Parts: sequence; C-alpha cells; structure tokens
Amino acid sequence: MSKIRVAVAGGTGYMGVELLRLLALHPRVDIRRATSEQYAGERLADVYPAFRDRLDLRLEELDRSRLAEGVDVVFSGLPHGAAAATIVEALKSDVVVFDLSADFRLKDAAEFQRWYGAHPAPQLLADAVYGIPEFARERIRRARIIAVPGCYPTGALLGLVPIVRAGIVGDGPIVVDSKSGASGAGRAAKTELLFGEIQENVRAYSVGRHRHLPEIEQELAAAGCRSDVIFTPHLLPIRRGILSTLYVPLRQVTDLAPAFASSFASEPFVQLLGEGKFPQVRDVRGTNLAQIGWTVLDPKPLAIVVTAIDNLGKGGSGQAVQDLNVRFGLDERTGLDQIAAVP
Amino acid sequence: MSKIRVAVAGGTGYMGVELLRLLALHPRVDIRRATSEQYAGERLADVYPAFRDRLDLRLEELDRSRLAEGVDVVFSGLPHGAAAATIVEALKSDVVVFDLSADFRLKDAAEFQRWYGAHPAPQLLADAVYGIPEFARERIRRARIIAVPGCYPTGALLGLVPIVRAGIVGDGPIVVDSKSGASGAGRAAKTELLFGEIQENVRAYSVGRHRHLPEIEQELAAAGCRSDVIFTPHLLPIRRGILSTLYVPLRQVTDLAPAFASSFASEPFVQLLGEGKFPQVRDVRGTNLAQIGWTVLDPKPLAIVVTAIDNLGKGGSGQAVQDLNVRFGLDERTGLDQIAAVP
Amino acid sequence: MSKIRVAVAGGTGYMGVELLRLLALHPRVDIRRATSEQYAGERLADVYPAFRDRLDLRLEELDRSRLAEGVDVVFSGLPHGAAAATIVEALKSDVVVFDLSADFRLKDAAEFQRWYGAHPAPQLLADAVYGIPEFARERIRRARIIAVPGCYPTGALLGLVPIVRAGIVGDGPIVVDSKSGASGAGRAAKTELLFGEIQENVRAYSVGRHRHLPEIEQELAAAGCRSDVIFTPHLLPIRRGILSTLYVPLRQVTDLAPAFASSFASEPFVQLLGEGKFPQVRDVRGTNLAQIGWTVLDPKPLAIVVTAIDNLGKGGSGQAVQDLNVRFGLDERTGLDQIAAVP
Amino acid sequence: MSKIRVAVAGGTGYMGVELLRLLALHPRVDIRRATSEQYAGERLADVYPAFRDRLDLRLEELDRSRLAEGVDVVFSGLPHGAAAATIVEALKSDVVVFDLSADFRLKDAAEFQRWYGAHPAPQLLADAVYGIPEFARERIRRARIIAVPGCYPTGALLGLVPIVRAGIVGDGPIVVDSKSGASGAGRAAKTELLFGEIQENVRAYSVGRHRHLPEIEQELAAAGCRSDVIFTPHLLPIRRGILSTLYVPLRQVTDLAPAFASSFASEPFVQLLGEGKFPQVRDVRGTNLAQIGWTVLDPKPLAIVVTAIDNLGKGGSGQAVQDLNVRFGLDERTGLDQIAAVP
Repeated sequence: MSKIRVAVAGGTGYMGVELLRLLALHPRVDIRRATSEQYAGERLADVYPAFRDRLDLRLEELDRSRLAEGVDVVFSGLPHGAAAATIVEALKSDVVVFDLSADFRLKDAAEFQRWYGAHPAPQLLADAVYGIPEFARERIRRARIIAVPGCYPTGALLGLVPIVRAGIVGDGPIVVDSKSGASGAGRAAKTELLFGEIQENVRAYSVGRHRHLPEIEQELAAAGCRSDVIFTPHLLPIRRGILSTLYVPLRQVTDLAPAFASSFASEPFVQLLGEGKFPQVRDVRGTNLAQIGWTVLDPKPLAIVVTAIDNLGKGGSGQAVQDLNVRFGLDERTGLDQIAAVP
Repeated sequence: MSKIRVAVAGGTGYMGVELLRLLALHPRVDIRRATSEQYAGERLADVYPAFRDRLDLRLEELDRSRLAEGVDVVFSGLPHGAAAATIVEALKSDVVVFDLSADFRLKDAAEFQRWYGAHPAPQLLADAVYGIPEFARERIRRARIIAVPGCYPTGALLGLVPIVRAGIVGDGPIVVDSKSGASGAGRAAKTELLFGEIQENVRAYSVGRHRHLPEIEQELAAAGCRSDVIFTPHLLPIRRGILSTLYVPLRQVTDLAPAFASSFASEPFVQLLGEGKFPQVRDVRGTNLAQIGWTVLDPKPLAIVVTAIDNLGKGGSGQAVQDLNVRFGLDERTGLDQIAAVP
Repeated sequence: MSKIRVAVAGGTGYMGVELLRLLALHPRVDIRRATSEQYAGERLADVYPAFRDRLDLRLEELDRSRLAEGVDVVFSGLPHGAAAATIVEALKSDVVVFDLSADFRLKDAAEFQRWYGAHPAPQLLADAVYGIPEFARERIRRARIIAVPGCYPTGALLGLVPIVRAGIVGDGPIVVDSKSGASGAGRAAKTELLFGEIQENVRAYSVGRHRHLPEIEQELAAAGCRSDVIFTPHLLPIRRGILSTLYVPLRQVTDLAPAFASSFASEPFVQLLGEGKFPQVRDVRGTNLAQIGWTVLDPKPLAIVVTAIDNLGKGGSGQAVQDLNVRFGLDERTGLDQIAAVP
Repeated sequence: MSKIRVAVAGGTGYMGVELLRLLALHPRVDIRRATSEQYAGERLADVYPAFRDRLDLRLEELDRSRLAEGVDVVFSGLPHGAAAATIVEALKSDVVVFDLSADFRLKDAAEFQRWYGAHPAPQLLADAVYGIPEFARERIRRARIIAVPGCYPTGALLGLVPIVRAGIVGDGPIVVDSKSGASGAGRAAKTELLFGEIQENVRAYSVGRHRHLPEIEQELAAAGCRSDVIFTPHLLPIRRGILSTLYVPLRQVTDLAPAFASSFASEPFVQLLGEGKFPQVRDVRGTNLAQIGWTVLDPKPLAIVVTAIDNLGKGGSGQAVQDLNVRFGLDERTGLDQIAAVP
C-alpha cells in the first residue's frame, strides 16, 4: 500500500518533535521533510538523540514555496501567524494541511483579532475544520485544513460537550480549572520556563483570560451551550499532561453516564472511568488517550468532571495523527497504539 | 525572660518535624519532650540528620499521663482520634494545647461524626478555638485548646472570608479548587505516596467530598456566608505548598481591594498582591506567609482569587507557632521570620 | 504464525508492569496469565488504568504447580528466593524461563549465599545463561533459564566489557558510579521511597557493597578482567533511567572507538555516541536502548565512559523481551521499537 | 552595635538572590545597595515576591565607580571577567570584597588564562584568599579580597583535604564524581536549562574537563597532594544541592575518623556522620552545612567519601556570609542558623 508523504514545518519545538516521534512510528507515513528555524542544516538525531537509528532526517530551513513539493500532507507546528502565512502558500499545491497553531481554530476573524491580532488569511477560516474527531469526524474527512485544537480546549471539551449535548446543563457559569505540564508552554528559552522556576512550584496564569477561552466558548456554543465559561490554567512541575477539573451546574441531579456513553461509547481514544472514578495524567502520558471520570454532588445539582490527556498527545500531535487517519480513511488507531509507561 | 516549656506529641510525621524545626528556631521556646510512635528511643538527629547540632532530643514513647508534666504547652501532631484522647489527659495539667489534627476544629459533634466517626470528647468542643489568628486573635488569647486549622481550609478561608465579610458574594456556589504538595498526605508508607506514583503525575481526590469541606463551610457560615461550597483537592508532585483557586460569584462587578485590605491591612503574614497579580507556592515555601491575588472578570460579576501557602507552614505548623505567639502575648513574628528560598 | 504463549509471575511491581506493557505491544506474544500477590482477583486495568482497552487480564494468585500450564514461556518478576522456588516447579513443564530476579545470575552458589542467603536450587545455576544478548546471544538461543541481568550491571557491563575485551585496561581499580531512578527500588510501600523523601534529594546507598557488585565482577572476569571494581549506586528523583559513569585506567592513551565498534557495530540496541559525546537518560527512557559515550583524558591514560539505559528497559523488562526474541529466533527488535518521548 | 554596610553587585541571579536572602536575615548586616543588569529600576520584591515585607530594595544599574560608596563590604555575584573589572574599581575605596566568581580563585594567571581567558587584573591574584574558613580562617581575617570557592570544589575539598593532610593517600588517581542541582548552572535563559530538558533526566557534562578542576587541584596540591584528580560533574533534576562521591586510594586500610576529626572536630558547619553513614542533600538544603560520611573497602585500601552541601549555601552564598563573619570577627554562625526543611 502506498504511503502518505508528509512534510512537517516547525519540527523541533516540543509539539513538533512529538509529531515526528508519532509519524516515525506510523506504518503508513513517509516523512519527506521537516523544517526547523533553530536547527536547519543539522541532523534530527544530533538535535534529539532519541531519534538515532529511528528517523534519518536532515532538518531544513523553511522555504514556503517548496514546503508542499512532492508531499500529500503538510503538518504545521509553527507559531500562530507564521502558520497561516505558510499554509496559504502550501495550499497552492494539492495537499491537506494539519495546523497545530491557533490560526484556523476560530471561525470569527474579529474574535481571532481580539486575542491574536489581525488574521493573515481570514478568507480561509470558513474552510477549516476544528479537528476533534469525536465531534467532527465527517467534516474532517472532507477538509483541506484541519485546525488541530488547543490542548486546554481538548481537555475541556471532551468533558463538557457530552453534557451540553444531553441538554442537562443548568444555570450559572461553568468553571474550567486546568493543570498543565510545562511542555505546553513550548521550548523557547525563557526565564520563566527554567527548571529552577517551575520545579517545586505551581502557579495560575492568564487567570480567566487565556487565549484558549474563545475556542472553548466557540465549540460549546456550537454544541448548544449558553453558559458563561470561566477558565484558569495552571502550570505544574510535570513535563506532560493536562488534568482539567470541570464544575458544571445541572438542571437537576442526574446520572451522567448516558450522556458520556452517547458521545463516546465506541470511541477508541476516549475511556470513561465512570461515576466516582477519576483519571491521572500518568495513565495517558505519551498516548492519544483521554480518560474521563465524574461525580454529581447529590443533592446539589452540580457535576464535577475530570479529564486527563497528554497535552502533546490528544492535546496536540496525537490528535493531529488521529485527524490524519480520519482524513485518509485509515483505522484511527494506526500508529497510535502506545500504552502509557507506569511508572 | 523565661522560656515557654513545650512538649510535642507526634513529632516525626511531616507536620511534626516541621513543628520541631520551627520551635527549635524560636527564641522563646524550650522543647522539653517529643514523642514518636515509630522512632521512640532514637535521637531526633539520627532520624532526621537536618537536626544535627541544632536540636538534641531523644524521642519518647507517648505516655499520655506524663506528656504534660513540667511543660506550659502541648502541641499535638497526632492523628485525629488519638489526638483528642491524648489532649483530654493533658488538660488535667495546667497547659495550653495546640492540636494539629481535626479533633477540635468542628463545633458540631454530629458533623464531626459524619466525617470522622464518634468524637472522643464532645464536651470539649465548645472550649476550642479555630485558630486562624487573622480571624480569631482575641479568642485565641484566652483559649485552652487551639484547633490549628486544616491546610486546605486555611488556604480557602484566607481568600474567601474577606469577601464574605464585605457582603458582596452573589448567588451560586463558590468553587474551591486546591492543588497541594504531597507532604499534606503525611509520611505513612503507602503505595499511593511513593515517588513512582506521584512524580510526573497529578490527580484529583475526594472530589467534592473531602473532610476539609465542613471546616470551610463552618467558618464561612460563621462569617455570614450562605453559599454552597464545592471543594476539590488535587495532589501535585511537589513536596510542599497549596495553591487554591477560588471562584466566587459576586453581586456585581466591584473592586476587591477594600475587602482584602479591611481584613488584612496590618497582618504580618498575609501579603496582598492585588488585582491581576497571582501568587506562586515557591514564594511562601518554608514560611508562615500567605500570598493572595485576584481578578474580577468584568463585565461578569465573578471573582477569581488565588491564594498560596505552605501546607506545613501557614497551613499547619507555622500557624501553630503563630497561635502560640498570640496566646502567650509575644510578637507574632517571633521565630517565623523565614524568607522563602528562591530557587 | 502462531504466537508465543506467555505467563508472567509477579506482574504488578514496577518491573512486572513494564514487562506486561512491552508484551502487550509485542505482535508475537499471547499473554495467557499474570499473577500478583497484592492484586490477585482484580483486573489489570483496574489496578493500572493505562492498560484499559489494551490488555484484558484478570490477575491471578500464584499457583506454582499450574503457572506453566499451557504456555511456552514463563517470565518471573518475583523477588529473589521466591523466583527460584517458582522456577524449579515451572521447569517440570516444557517451558523456557526468563527470570528478572538475581536467583540465576551468579554462577557460584557460595558467592550467591554471601549476598542473598542459601540458594534454593543450586543445581540449576549451571544451566542458566546471563542474558545480555550483545555478549551471550548464542548461549541464550539454547538456554532453558535466562537470567535477565540486573539494571546496574547492564549499564556497567555495556560500557566496560568492550574495553576489557580489547585488552587495554591498565592497573588500578575501575570505578563504577551509577545514578538510578527510583523505580529501580521497586514498588514496596517503604518510607524511604515516599515522594517526600526522594524529591529534591539525592543519596548514595550500599556504598561500595551493593548486591549487584558480584554480577559485575563475574561478567568482567569472564571477559578477562583482573581489575578491582568499585561500585556505588545513587538514588535520584527520577522515575526511570540509569546513568553510569565509569572510570577506567588504560595501559596507555588510546582511541576507544575500535573497541566499542568491535563489540557493538551491528547491535540494534546499542548506540555509540563516540568520543566527547555523552548520553542522557531521557533519550533511552521507555526503550530497550543503551547509549554510550566516552572520553580519554589525554595525556592521562584514563577513560571515562558514560552509559545510559532505562532501568526497566534494557536494564530489565526490555532486555527480557530482547532475550525472548533471541531465544525464539525472532527479529530482536520485535515489540521493542519505542522511541523515547522528548520531552 | 553598628552594622556592616553592604553592597551586592549582581543580585538577581540564583547565587545573588540567595545572598540577599541570607544577608536580609543577618542581624549585623545593612544592605545598602544591590545591582541587577536584568532588573535595574525594579523593586526586589516585584522580581522576587519572597522578599515582600522582608527586604525593601530598589535594584540599581551597576555603576562601578560608585558601587563601593558608603559601604564597608562589596559582594560580587557577577560572572567571571565582569567581576574582576568591577572589583578593581571597588578596591579604590576602603572596602573588603567577597567575590563569588572564579576571578580570584586561581593563584596562577597562566592557569586562569587556560580555563577562562586572560585575567583582567593578575596583579591582585596574590592578595586574594581562597575562602574556605575551615582551611584558611586566619588568612581570611586579614584579606581584602576573599575568593568564595566554587560549589564543586567546596564539596570535593571538604572530603579530600583532611585525608591528604593526614598523609594517607595512596597511589593512583582520586576520582571526584559530583551530582549537582540545576541552580548551579545559573538563571540565564538557555534551552538546556528548561524544565522540559532537565526534569526526569540526568547527564554528565564537561566530563573530565570542567573549569572547577584546577581549583580542586590547586587546593589539594597546597595541602600536599600529588595525585591526579579526575572530576566529572552531573546535572540532576533538583533545584539545589551537590552530592560528591569521592574515590580515594589509600596507602593501606585505615580508619578515617581521626583524619576528619583532626580537620573538623570543632567546626560549626561541618558535620561528620562517620564510617558507613552517608549524607543526603536534603539535610543541608538551604543551609551553610556540609555533611560528610565515608567507608573504607577493607581489605581493599580504598576510601569512598560522600559529601553533601547546598551549592548556593556552603557552595556559594552561605560560605560568603561565613567568610564575612570570619573577616569581621563575628560568631561564624551569625545569620546562618537555618535548619533544612524536611520534607
């Protein structure tokens, strides 16, 4: 069977290198090209010795006009702004694009501008599909641009959309309190990301006003939600993983199992732990899995849902590969059969 | 000036050893006795080499009838149940008791029973003072039993009571989402507390139903709060520290600074970072400090307050020493002048 | 192609669960049975949720007389002593045994007794093969008992045997200074293994007198070494990985590359970084790889060799699976194609 | 009693901020000035909120010509090169200088040049005293420039000098294998110091050729040692602390206790754990203590000595304050009475 030929733009940030790891393990993918601003000209295995003997690749400078040459798929791990500019150019070739930045996640250019500045290619926003396969599988199958969702939104939406769809959300705001590993902040050399600043520490940031909020709001609204969403991310001293604790007012005390089963019963990457059981990030680390547990505080009509994902897995590169599998009609599990290492 | 003679029951758990550390640094305290179930007969410095040349003490078996002999003060770091039984006996002598367990925190014996089982000495509950000096200084000055508050309640109450007192809390539940270091779970040899289980991991536990919830509810109610409180603790891979993220519905958008200033303006251990600034646990680690920041999500009438304490400091042994200073008329800062080490 | 039917005794310690993870990913293995003292009767996925939907197995009590029933292979993750007693019984069936304990590593029953107590089945010692495939491939192919080497010895021997074989070791002792993650100490509920004891800490233990020393000495002697070996292990606050820093006196300043190439040039799991480049444990974590770098302190005739392995991978369960592949004539890489996740 | 007026140049790196912490706690010190390249103009407590209400200081730009104005003492936390240039200027005033860089540690300008480049002020090298009080107390009392020793050399020398002085070192090289926390590498925003690169990782660096080697050699030679020294540092995922494992050939098997007692019996900051007991970094963290344990591998004439210090404490700022106390005739323990927090 012929392989899918792939180019990766921005392959040496934490998101990009995880994408290369997953693609290198994917039996139907042929990685033809990877670019790196910082390491152009170097061999991947010299930058990341974990790839030694596993992926023989010389990193290239990004040449937008040639990025899509001879490939079927372009993955972009570039930052927002740079991503859209590159993708506009790539789409002149007959390729499918999977974008890990925020550039094609929001449907509303004005909303995008409010959070990120003017959009470089607003005409393309309508074409892009927000790529959570569990919620948009059919649209992903026909898309040319798949916007791979943000890590926090993925963790929040997997826990909230089923409840919203079930029509059981009550009055009052939904609170999304998320705890993330440091890799979510990327690999830029910033003082605040030093080991000495993060180890033995925890802090909230962008309290109530994080850029991932409009993504969550947009997708919840699309599912029929009219509640306010309050979102606070926290930075933890772990490398990977997001735990999201979701506080949801209900119309009345009710069993949530049917709502979650209705959305996820046959999903290969969503594991329902059930009422009273709660996930840990270690059980999904290095995988494309999401684990979900919940409780209802009977007699109070309030649900607490907890979801765990790997921010670089289901929250990023893993989901991008799942999107690829969906888009190209492969078994969705192809190349995504990792089992989390314990310990 | 004569020293305060002190006995410590249960001195080798994480809370007990932090208490011994603080008392050893306290210029007005003379540690006469410390007991340890696990290490009775051994020298403290052999169990904890950090005390070498600093505190020369042989750990004793707990003998309830003699614990209070020749001392002015008994600190109890014993677990709940054992604490009350020991304290009943100690109070036959003329001592003041500072109890780090839950035994004297709840006023209502029925509520205690619901969470912990039958109370061993319900007749003493009325005598005990819930020992957050910022809220109960005058009562602490006259108390014979000071119930040193739980770590989570301290972090939550310091952020919530000022808003409650200001009469600006709106309808809907208050959400308390807390993140704690592993020392809060104690030093018992349990599989779930192993390094291999906690490192690179995060999990919620006792979701919505943790034993510290009734403490929070009791003290908020005492301050005039009628809201539901939803509380979820999380276990982080850090040794010490609690970050509490508090979501509070307000009657209307309003500036919180006056409320916090009104409660804490002249408090030596509460530091107000102000609107839009948020604390990190590292800045209070090893100290008796609490740092508090907040934001109001204008135009939504909802406040997010973040507090940071050391669970063994202001959330336990530090607060116990502050209580001691209050009770004996010392400057409250005596022995509590640590500055958090950064990094 | 028919699958190799496998039983695992002692499957829920850290070594056992990593073995189950690797075997579950192995395309030619059918896991028929796994025992657990602590969790007998429970489903594996309830104990370790990472196995949900990946390995459906109910853990059994160990019944020595039936462990080998209907299988081709028995893996033992039992502690020393218990392992030998179980293996003696298993060998009454026509099975091949891979033992992760120390019971069959030492050839000399007297030496075994000195370190571990009387051997339960000394008559079997001669049959066992010390299973580092890079050094004993042919013997493993014919063995009934493969003693999977200790984690520290594997890390040390991979760095030392090539130099010994090259006949270039000079006078004076060889120093083996090893740094290990906490999973090497197992999953028993011991105070010294608590998060609060290991995090932000490092300590040496069994200084100069660790039980893995005789293994290192035995295998170096078999390779022709007559030097004293000095060995000190250290416990680090990481979950997995061993870095071994090896100080080797040479007869004269010489290039070590030929010696390492001669031993490992075509080895799939040993990666030579070369002179002046040194490995990190993160690049081998979760894999069966060993990475080796070195330098010679010209003009001093002294080499420093640094090796990195995962103590549960090449230092344990990974090597056990490699041994299985060798023993059953499979491509050695089968089921062992993980790429270390970075970060 | 009048206070010692102090200026700190380079006060916001990890070494500088630890110095400010210790000086702020010192009852005889008045911090008049602190400079910071990165944060000039900001308040210390805004950069490091741990100093809130504890040290009210506005950070200044470094003005070499005025640094020493109105102070008795200048501490320099500047990098090498910049330090010497600043100190030359400071010495035009009547001040005593404590330099935390390498600029005044080596006596031989040629040796300095080999490791660091040309020395900016070689004429001052003879005046400087290498400031380990346990070995140079009398010279420190009369010095104008105290070169505060490097962190690795301090850990190594405290374990080696007593044995060298005792005249019992045998033939063959001494191996110094050191494991350090990440704060030793400073606070510069470098990719290799990011949390994602250090957590769950360990690596050797500058293997056999680290800049601290000549310091160790110089001071051992001054004590009468003629052995080669082999030194390898390792970077651990801890914030603070250095554990040094020292392998020392002896003339014959002998008891080391007299040698250590002879050097350290009455030292307030060196704690001898004795034969067969080994230190952990957690017991000295945040303090100026060194703990030392050892064993002799009878019948082999080889000693293993393990020392633990805090790299920012006895390995840096703590020792600088101890040097200050010595130089100004104060009790050496003044301001250095911290007890390591456990956990």
